[in-house]
Amino acid sequence: MFSGAQISLYPMTGDFVGVITKALEAFEPYRDRMRVETDDISTLIVGPPEVIFPAMRDLFATAARSGEHVVLHATISRGCPGEPDDGICDTSALGHHDMSAEQRIGEAIAAVKAAPMSDIEAAAQFSLYVMGSGDHMDEIYSCIDFLKQSGTFAKAKNFCTKLGGDAGAVFRTVQMAFCRFGPPEGHVTIDLTVSANSPSLK
Amino acid sequence: MFSGAQISLYPMTGDFVGVITKALEAFEPYRDRMRVETDDISTLIVGPPEVIFPAMRDLFATAARSGEHVVLHATISRGCPGEPDDGICDTSALGHHDMSAEQRIGEAIAAVKAAPMSDIEAAAQFSLYVMGSGDHMDEIYSCIDFLKQSGTFAKAKNFCTKLGGDAGAVFRTVQMAFCRFGPPEGHVTIDLTVSANSPSLK
Repeated sequence: MFSGAQISLYPMTGDFVGVITKALEAFEPYRDRMRVETDDISTLIVGPPEVIFPAMRDLFATAARSGEHVVLHATISRGCPGEPDDGICDTSALGHHDMSAEQRIGEAIAAVKAAPMSDIEAAAQFSLYVMGSGDHMDEIYSCIDFLKQSGTFAKAKNFCTKLGGDAGAVFRTVQMAFCRFGPPEGHVTIDLTVSANSPSLK
Repeated sequence: MFSGAQISLYPMTGDFVGVITKALEAFEPYRDRMRVETDDISTLIVGPPEVIFPAMRDLFATAARSGEHVVLHATISRGCPGEPDDGICDTSALGHHDMSAEQRIGEAIAAVKAAPMSDIEAAAQFSLYVMGSGDHMDEIYSCIDFLKQSGTFAKAKNFCTKLGGDAGAVFRTVQMAFCRFGPPEGHVTIDLTVSANSPSLK
């Protein structure tokens, strides 16, 4: 299994390089458990979900504490048939398809309730894609059931679901969607956008 | 069929609202052929591929002409089983699965060569997702064959493909990937990021 994300951070300020550089310090506690590669468009992090989601959360929260309007985008993937296995991604957090959809939803809700708070208010939207099976929409609908009970659900939009709340709960919600829905060995991806300090909300 | 995109524009400047407002004027020639709805995270455009891709290109190019580092992100979708049919999306541009993969690749390459230039240098990366069929990777690999011959191919990255060149050719390349690969009536999505004026390239 190969899992990771291509992430980009967009601070809407002339000092965007300063905000990004400072925010990247938030990766330090995770660097021995994930691989990091950067180019001019995005930063690749490769590691298991329980490492990459908290790393993304802390990157985002650190940038948001600048007070600037900041957005994080991530293309998150697991099980892509085109990617080689990588030991750094080993995890027991995926799928649990021996459990019914109802049980998986219950555990996911509990995990969001237990998420540590970050004191950063976040608005997010994401799309979950389950590839390579004829019943992909069943897993999507189970995931939507979970989202509606997650405490972070804001609304359904075309092509995606909108979330809101503390960044700690928001990132945990997306992590649960990624890990608990779609086959454990399947190809599952997420297209995630998280925003803080938007003037549109003032 | 329902098709459209959730798009966001990120100008890395304190005057991001001014750059976005000005860029949105680029939508004017397309407004009678697409529906537009905005919230604090993204703008939804609903319409056929031959309208929404040029609209995104012109939005991006107008923002990039500000000279600021700007990024456009789009979550593009067609055929999602959860979305209602919409007459505004009617198109004959999708799929062409009576043609072999080789023929589709040839036509896509020709379409990129014929794309109008915008005089904006763009770097992009995107992921194409073909849902609901067991052979989704065959269509992905055909699409990658096309990309490598498109004239805009930069490199393969984990989870996505990187493109570069004039914004006119780059957006046309992504449009061809969206329209010519994956079943005509199938659920196909793209996670697209396009960047201009990045200081990382200087």
